[in-house]
Amino acid sequence: MGNLERIENIIKKFTKKNLKIAIAESCTGGYVSHMITNISGASNVFERGIVCYNNQAKIDLLKVTPKSININGAVSENVVRQLASNIKELSNVEIGIGVSGIAGPTGGTPEKPVGTVFIGFSTEEGTQVKKFVFKTDRINFKKMVLEKILDYLEQMIS
Amino acid sequence: MGNLERIENIIKKFTKKNLKIAIAESCTGGYVSHMITNISGASNVFERGIVCYNNQAKIDLLKVTPKSININGAVSENVVRQLASNIKELSNVEIGIGVSGIAGPTGGTPEKPVGTVFIGFSTEEGTQVKKFVFKTDRINFKKMVLEKILDYLEQMIS
Repeated sequence: MGNLERIENIIKKFTKKNLKIAIAESCTGGYVSHMITNISGASNVFERGIVCYNNQAKIDLLKVTPKSININGAVSENVVRQLASNIKELSNVEIGIGVSGIAGPTGGTPEKPVGTVFIGFSTEEGTQVKKFVFKTDRINFKKMVLEKILDYLEQMIS
Repeated sequence: MGNLERIENIIKKFTKKNLKIAIAESCTGGYVSHMITNISGASNVFERGIVCYNNQAKIDLLKVTPKSININGAVSENVVRQLASNIKELSNVEIGIGVSGIAGPTGGTPEKPVGTVFIGFSTEEGTQVKKFVFKTDRINFKKMVLEKILDYLEQMIS
């Protein structure tokens, strides 16, 4: 199934269950929000997206603590946990999603190479953060993150 | 020139002039942010994006007055003026962009048919809002809005 079809299916099922999603995305730069909102009826499910591309936006809009960015870096389990959890609380939705990573081609380090990404999912049951490394180009990187998010959302309704 | 090339050119020139952009997009759902951040180096210019898909997000995140939404509707010159002006102020950037419209296929009215969109641009010189009607499908609609924004940004640096 193509991603648009997968999203259509997710929106239908989430609409039926009256579940809403909000997303705070950094490295994916709005791509996840864009893909979800390509589907007519997305507004029943998609509440808001924040493209918190720089650190000040993460602090201002998602209440990420400056200390956690200084200690762990913006691309870290700790910061993504806050992104997912705080967008859920601030938007008053059932599912908060947070993404931060290094899309490349620059910005990598030995510890966090280009392609490293943390994806966080927050529901009333708690927040989990997954780490991946997608060694690919900038545009395909965004697509691979989207697919991990779709996997998660599909699991929620399966 | 393709849109990616146009964006690359805009990012280069805005980086040189140290100009930063923030965008509050509703109907385009993150597409404009996504396209800008496809370019490596976008982080020098793109400060943040907000996908204020529902009215509460416009009120919470962009300080749009509930009264103006009640009186004019979310798709209006007045609301888009606030989106552009407020994202500029809140993000502390040189150029604030606001977008609200009806991507369709549903949601149109005789007064505001599907395809209606207001695009606002705010700089220290003031805020201007332009109205367009793009009678096309949902995905091409987003592309046409992007192209109007690129036209404006190119004019700024020409």
